[in-house]
Amino acid sequence: MDPNAVAKAFVEHYYSTFDTNRGGLANLYQDGSMLTFEGQPFQGAQNIAAKLASLPFQQCQHAITTVDCQPSGPAGGMLVFVSGNLQLAGEQHALKFSQMFHLMPTPQGSFYVQNDIFRLNYA
Amino acid sequence: MDPNAVAKAFVEHYYSTFDTNRGGLANLYQDGSMLTFEGQPFQGAQNIAAKLASLPFQQCQHAITTVDCQPSGPAGGMLVFVSGNLQLAGEQHALKFSQMFHLMPTPQGSFYVQNDIFRLNYA
Repeated sequence: MDPNAVAKAFVEHYYSTFDTNRGGLANLYQDGSMLTFEGQPFQGAQNIAAKLASLPFQQCQHAITTVDCQPSGPAGGMLVFVSGNLQLAGEQHALKFSQMFHLMPTPQGSFYVQNDIFRLNYA
Repeated sequence: MDPNAVAKAFVEHYYSTFDTNRGGLANLYQDGSMLTFEGQPFQGAQNIAAKLASLPFQQCQHAITTVDCQPSGPAGGMLVFVSGNLQLAGEQHALKFSQMFHLMPTPQGSFYVQNDIFRLNYA
């Protein structure tokens, strides 16, 4: 399968889940997964989902600007680098962000997020 | 060794080399290394160094804003996520950028860049 197509499909799935059913993101992480969110580290699907659920906004919409990907090694992993805009309900201006994911294959032929680093791009 | 300290030392070395001796960056990559620069893919230390040498500016200065890192798996790799400003000689405004590196250990106890993805953060 084309890695760029896989990366794009993952990214669309990730952010549409974030925007419509944030709790569903827990299924994309595993116990060994790591998130660094604005410099704060979280480990494990449960802690990561709790952090994402606790963000100080409810309704939001991600719009993706760029998606880059590269294979990450012999284990079949994939690095995905995203830039985009995050529009919060009631806010005039969108927030720009950059985020990277290290995806690893599951036995079922899908991917989970092993590593996730998120940063807002401050103006 | 503290992974955050290793990441910070790598980042300082990488950008000071970029700003003072760009050709020296070739030593940080290997034949299997990959660079995606503003969406354009390059593979191998020689092609990557040639791309970096061909950028349409000579003098520049990187100023780092954030460095995040996570271990990347059992092989001892490390993911490093950087945001910063790139000041070109003669330009009034700096360019904001985000860049990720996947570092892998060398037998000599150092690291080389296996994966490198660079994006300017357009305003």
